[in-house]
Amino acid sequence: MKLWDKGFSTDKKIDQFTVGNDRELDLQLAKYDVIASKAHAKMLGKIGLLTQKETQELVKELDAIASRIERGTFTIEPSFEDMHSKIEYMLTLSLGDTGKKIHTARSRNDQVLVAMHLYLKDELSEIKSMTKELFDLLLEKAETYKDVLLPGYTHLQIAMPSSFGLWFSAYAESLIDDLYFIEAAYKVADQNPLGSAAGYGSSFPIDRSFTTKEMGFETLKYNVVAAQMGRGKVEKATAFGMASIASTLSKMAMDICLYMSQNFNFISFPDELTTGSSIMPHKKNPDVFELVRGKCNKLQSVPNQLTLVINNLPSGYHRDLQLVKEIIVPAIQDMKACLEILTFSLEEIQVNKDILEDEKYDYLFSVDTLNELVQNGMPFRDAYKKMGQEIQQGTFTPKRDISHSHEGSLGNLCLPEIKSKMDKIG
Amino acid sequence: MKLWDKGFSTDKKIDQFTVGNDRELDLQLAKYDVIASKAHAKMLGKIGLLTQKETQELVKELDAIASRIERGTFTIEPSFEDMHSKIEYMLTLSLGDTGKKIHTARSRNDQVLVAMHLYLKDELSEIKSMTKELFDLLLEKAETYKDVLLPGYTHLQIAMPSSFGLWFSAYAESLIDDLYFIEAAYKVADQNPLGSAAGYGSSFPIDRSFTTKEMGFETLKYNVVAAQMGRGKVEKATAFGMASIASTLSKMAMDICLYMSQNFNFISFPDELTTGSSIMPHKKNPDVFELVRGKCNKLQSVPNQLTLVINNLPSGYHRDLQLVKEIIVPAIQDMKACLEILTFSLEEIQVNKDILEDEKYDYLFSVDTLNELVQNGMPFRDAYKKMGQEIQQGTFTPKRDISHSHEGSLGNLCLPEIKSKMDKIG
Amino acid sequence: MKLWDKGFSTDKKIDQFTVGNDRELDLQLAKYDVIASKAHAKMLGKIGLLTQKETQELVKELDAIASRIERGTFTIEPSFEDMHSKIEYMLTLSLGDTGKKIHTARSRNDQVLVAMHLYLKDELSEIKSMTKELFDLLLEKAETYKDVLLPGYTHLQIAMPSSFGLWFSAYAESLIDDLYFIEAAYKVADQNPLGSAAGYGSSFPIDRSFTTKEMGFETLKYNVVAAQMGRGKVEKATAFGMASIASTLSKMAMDICLYMSQNFNFISFPDELTTGSSIMPHKKNPDVFELVRGKCNKLQSVPNQLTLVINNLPSGYHRDLQLVKEIIVPAIQDMKACLEILTFSLEEIQVNKDILEDEKYDYLFSVDTLNELVQNGMPFRDAYKKMGQEIQQGTFTPKRDISHSHEGSLGNLCLPEIKSKMDKIG
Amino acid sequence: MKLWDKGFSTDKKIDQFTVGNDRELDLQLAKYDVIASKAHAKMLGKIGLLTQKETQELVKELDAIASRIERGTFTIEPSFEDMHSKIEYMLTLSLGDTGKKIHTARSRNDQVLVAMHLYLKDELSEIKSMTKELFDLLLEKAETYKDVLLPGYTHLQIAMPSSFGLWFSAYAESLIDDLYFIEAAYKVADQNPLGSAAGYGSSFPIDRSFTTKEMGFETLKYNVVAAQMGRGKVEKATAFGMASIASTLSKMAMDICLYMSQNFNFISFPDELTTGSSIMPHKKNPDVFELVRGKCNKLQSVPNQLTLVINNLPSGYHRDLQLVKEIIVPAIQDMKACLEILTFSLEEIQVNKDILEDEKYDYLFSVDTLNELVQNGMPFRDAYKKMGQEIQQGTFTPKRDISHSHEGSLGNLCLPEIKSKMDKIG
Repeated sequence: MKLWDKGFSTDKKIDQFTVGNDRELDLQLAKYDVIASKAHAKMLGKIGLLTQKETQELVKELDAIASRIERGTFTIEPSFEDMHSKIEYMLTLSLGDTGKKIHTARSRNDQVLVAMHLYLKDELSEIKSMTKELFDLLLEKAETYKDVLLPGYTHLQIAMPSSFGLWFSAYAESLIDDLYFIEAAYKVADQNPLGSAAGYGSSFPIDRSFTTKEMGFETLKYNVVAAQMGRGKVEKATAFGMASIASTLSKMAMDICLYMSQNFNFISFPDELTTGSSIMPHKKNPDVFELVRGKCNKLQSVPNQLTLVINNLPSGYHRDLQLVKEIIVPAIQDMKACLEILTFSLEEIQVNKDILEDEKYDYLFSVDTLNELVQNGMPFRDAYKKMGQEIQQGTFTPKRDISHSHEGSLGNLCLPEIKSKMDKIG
Repeated sequence: MKLWDKGFSTDKKIDQFTVGNDRELDLQLAKYDVIASKAHAKMLGKIGLLTQKETQELVKELDAIASRIERGTFTIEPSFEDMHSKIEYMLTLSLGDTGKKIHTARSRNDQVLVAMHLYLKDELSEIKSMTKELFDLLLEKAETYKDVLLPGYTHLQIAMPSSFGLWFSAYAESLIDDLYFIEAAYKVADQNPLGSAAGYGSSFPIDRSFTTKEMGFETLKYNVVAAQMGRGKVEKATAFGMASIASTLSKMAMDICLYMSQNFNFISFPDELTTGSSIMPHKKNPDVFELVRGKCNKLQSVPNQLTLVINNLPSGYHRDLQLVKEIIVPAIQDMKACLEILTFSLEEIQVNKDILEDEKYDYLFSVDTLNELVQNGMPFRDAYKKMGQEIQQGTFTPKRDISHSHEGSLGNLCLPEIKSKMDKIG
Repeated sequence: MKLWDKGFSTDKKIDQFTVGNDRELDLQLAKYDVIASKAHAKMLGKIGLLTQKETQELVKELDAIASRIERGTFTIEPSFEDMHSKIEYMLTLSLGDTGKKIHTARSRNDQVLVAMHLYLKDELSEIKSMTKELFDLLLEKAETYKDVLLPGYTHLQIAMPSSFGLWFSAYAESLIDDLYFIEAAYKVADQNPLGSAAGYGSSFPIDRSFTTKEMGFETLKYNVVAAQMGRGKVEKATAFGMASIASTLSKMAMDICLYMSQNFNFISFPDELTTGSSIMPHKKNPDVFELVRGKCNKLQSVPNQLTLVINNLPSGYHRDLQLVKEIIVPAIQDMKACLEILTFSLEEIQVNKDILEDEKYDYLFSVDTLNELVQNGMPFRDAYKKMGQEIQQGTFTPKRDISHSHEGSLGNLCLPEIKSKMDKIG
Repeated sequence: MKLWDKGFSTDKKIDQFTVGNDRELDLQLAKYDVIASKAHAKMLGKIGLLTQKETQELVKELDAIASRIERGTFTIEPSFEDMHSKIEYMLTLSLGDTGKKIHTARSRNDQVLVAMHLYLKDELSEIKSMTKELFDLLLEKAETYKDVLLPGYTHLQIAMPSSFGLWFSAYAESLIDDLYFIEAAYKVADQNPLGSAAGYGSSFPIDRSFTTKEMGFETLKYNVVAAQMGRGKVEKATAFGMASIASTLSKMAMDICLYMSQNFNFISFPDELTTGSSIMPHKKNPDVFELVRGKCNKLQSVPNQLTLVINNLPSGYHRDLQLVKEIIVPAIQDMKACLEILTFSLEEIQVNKDILEDEKYDYLFSVDTLNELVQNGMPFRDAYKKMGQEIQQGTFTPKRDISHSHEGSLGNLCLPEIKSKMDKIG
């Protein structure tokens, strides 16, 4: 049953090609279509396009559908194009003509748009909350391991002393930057597009402020053409935010995979969190972290995917926009899975405390030794030359009792200040 | 002259390959290196690593260099690797040993980082301000042409009535969403990274809060490893913001190119803003808008470029990061050029006021006619079928006196509300 | 049941995160794992690691599994990690210890690699063949409509006369270029990687030339490290080829959507191939072509997706590579669906034969009129000025009896030459 | 001086915005415009649109311009829009009306297209030849170091024995695959587009087979619309080829950076090929290889850049296409620079011959030890369990005298076979 069926028998091939996997994705979005339909029904009641009785019946039926969705018993059979058709069918089955009236003064484009905005608001909130959970864990680990030193690398060459305190909290502070983009995406999503209809508004005297309040949006996307142009754009905004977080997680996973290699041997994880090999019995592989890295790298390709699909289309709806859903919904699932598994796994990290005892790390202390010369009055460039000569002649002796005290250094991590910066995001 | 020259004659080929076009790009960034060097010198004075006299001399010399940069007389000769080498050379030439001391407790990585943050803050502010200028113009044009109707398309098929009021202000309201990402990027940039040195901080007791205040940063990027990981990340944040704006401008340019085609003929521009053809004398081509579209589409590829360069690198500095500069600086120039030329050109737009008189646009009014049936009591689906039959039988007569009155519709553009949403960005 | 199970109870979360949707994708690849397993078994027999009896038993069982796969009765239950585990389980169930021996001298990485190469060879062949079918149809349509004129646009401005003959065959000839990349991808796939084991070869005296011949590969990927590095690379090669075709199809779909707009009205399709609108009863929307465009634009993002996943990984297997399968397999399905639906739909295209009668197309003939002046001896630049003045003064009269005769022009389409170029691909 | 100047004073802003940096890029392409102009002039002579004398004069002048270009004395002043304007100006200055006649039966679009095809043919040939030089060096190094063992990693975990022989020749064999894409791009470029004029052919009876032969093209791009659609497409084809090579080089550079780290210490380079640090005097940084990696990663973004610029444009020329040149020309320069510097540097590589003596590499031999059990008759899965227990109980003793003998393994590198595969490319 297609909404726009005009009596022609549309060829099956076309049908299959155009429907895609909307039904499956729609199971995640159906909840939001119901919320928006309830708000729309109440509004139609308020402006007199539905009677009070019709409104109450529709709201009651929609609540019943919402319960089914929550219990997992809502289904979209292959005979329905999408959730919108199915829900409207259910309403009409129960309420007859009243059920049909829900579609007054709105369009399917409208429904998809507003459901997507509501869905993204929820998912962005959850992503933010999961990111904060990871952030808290990272700060906690930084505090726990603040005194355990780690070689700091530049160019992958041994460079200067670092610490697990610095390493953990660096990723924590980086996540704050990423959340600025999640916040920006949330602002884009937190605008009510309902009422744009097919993209040019409606001749019915609908009350968009009413539905805005009813659904809990911060404000309206006023201009109906702008609201329609939000299709693809609000998903891309979300993708930018997720790509930011993904970039940070991917980098951390890269570090972890490196640090778990026998050539570094800085950290390890319990056997339950590693996997073996079918042919090399001694292996304990960091599959979890490799997959976090891989999935996060894939997540970083999502903005470009969306851009390619929506780019250079003139204004107004195009069917291409349907594809946006099948890109963003699985990406959000991947993002949440990565955040969850990383928090879950990092809880169990085991840190090697004697790393710097290996003499290959002696040179880590060259800079601090050089700085001491400078603090004793030698110009930097001269001290630099002297040190270089000592190192080349093999006469360099490292000064291992380093003390970094400035803000953000390994002796002064400023964890409360970092925490307070995060707290400002709210 | 290389800072790290140790007496080896580094092969010329290597030299040329590794320096790249940094010198040219650095002319735009030199101003910010001087600002940061002044703050650093003052801080060294404050903590006693420089005498008051040394500090004053350095500040004075740096001011002199700043003047040269402003006057356009500062140059970076091929004998210098970059602006940092040149500026240090100038200081040493004037001040001898004191000049050398400016490099105490900082690293070149430090300098590049902090200069980039300062540069991006300035550029992001300018981009925001230029975007607001375009926004204001679009609202003004929307007000001027609010009553001029335009066909609204879906699937590029004639669909429903739209208006120039809707069209102009749709792009205005969309730009607000884009600025949320510029704001997010600004927050990322507005954190002082100076003090991270080579990425692991310094053993000198530097005062990072002092330099933060001195350079006007909102806060510190506390963790020194996080500060270093900002290389590439702050540029990518900026690129996300620019890609958002670019996406909106590109779409508008696509509309303009379409609307200037003889097949639409909705708008035109004075001859000065169009170009001719070497072989088709009657042509008035929208080259400006095609190039806005093309450049904005290229701008949308920048986040991915940066991602590819910085992705899957373990933490710590890598020389790859040098390439980030040559990607972001020209992109910013393109962004500003597009904003400028679009504002400049749209000022002159000529709008065709009789578009809808062509009878091919009659069907635009079918939905409103259908809605009237519904408002008179017919269920939507029945009205829909009746209309479909009339259209197929050729008995449809359009009702042209449309009146859309809801918020954001063509009869009620809500321009003040849109303006007020923009004003909240500050 | 995991191949690498060592008695530890691997946490369920980890399990779910790492398995992904391999089982579903593997149903498409299982056929190729069986082909490779048969070749491997025969080779083990040949070099004496299996007895003749063991070999025969394994081959027979593998044939039985192949039949199940072909009949659609092969399944991979959630208790199996992937097809490889399931197939080995089936062999062991039937043959006991003999079943276990199939894994001698190979690794799971090996199996995935060789199955992917075989799968891609088949799919690339099918894509080539479907592309050629579309090519043939386009040439046929070009021949049929060779005399129907069409406005040629530059800058979307009316420029010079074109024809449906030119338009159809332009896309045909473009597809030849795309197939060069499909051919290149095929060459990459047509090399036997089996024997690389975990990426570093085997200490067993396996006979790789034997399996190469047995599976019908053109040659070996000799170096075992190179063979392993093919993971991700052979998929990316395929993605380049598909992106090439997709780019051509997307452009054609864009033209079609434009030409179906009432503002062009150059072509149409039977109702069965268009869709309606829930709110605008007169619409006949080109959804099929919009989805071809959208899917093909998404296909153009696949090389970048793969690049992001595999980039900057040092040599040797990483678990990230598992994600490559879930990117390439659905992309191939989309590619084939687009080729199929486009060929199916274009068959029904309806061409408007009176397009150029509209007077707005008069200027199309200005260049040819100008050329006539030149052929009569006036220097080009002077003729150009004269024409420009006539057009500006409204005294220009088009010379509509155009005759283009050179190779590849609208009067001389060279369809046999284009066909012959395609035939060279083989 | 603009070719299309019609007397209007085009605003300077527009001028600056639209010209871009074409002049600089055109210095590299001018040579090819001259070649094409000569062919075009001769053809005009052949078909009688120029007299023999005119043709000879034009050819002579064009030869003079070619000499200037070769000597580096050809310039494009800011008063000229591009090379085409400048060359035509020079011809007119010398030959008066005859100079103007060169533009008969062609368009600037034509000129840009054919010059780009000729340019890309040359550059693709050079890239192929440079790639083969690197290939030869890699095979030579593989032969030299075929007996030096290296740990093979999977998941960055120590896995199985590898060798420098395998490592060097793996990258060699991978480059062959990359060249298949360079070959495909070459085929796309090796088709003469001249004669498409503004994209729809010419009413002059031009002889395209003559110019095809004259310029040494393999065949024609027959269809004039297809020829025009080649703009952007031939560059993208080239970008696919370069991205393939870049991916291989980037991976090798990643390995090198890792292997130069003190945590691996597998290879080193003379001081002349490494760089120092301003603050860490002992550092010998792999800047060259980091920049190869970074530039090659940037090169991998080029196909997507081009796609974004040309995608979703309907057929026919658009000014956006001008931007393609500024993307592809610098990318080609980067590609060649990376190939050159990598070949130059790898020549000097220093290989550590005692890597495997460190006991942490003992487990490398576990698989071969396991295989021996299997070859002595124990079923694989049982042998696997036994080995796992020994390793866990610390009773495992590695069997270090490995002998891999199959094709492509470390004992049988098949370098001549790999060489022969490359030779087939021609």
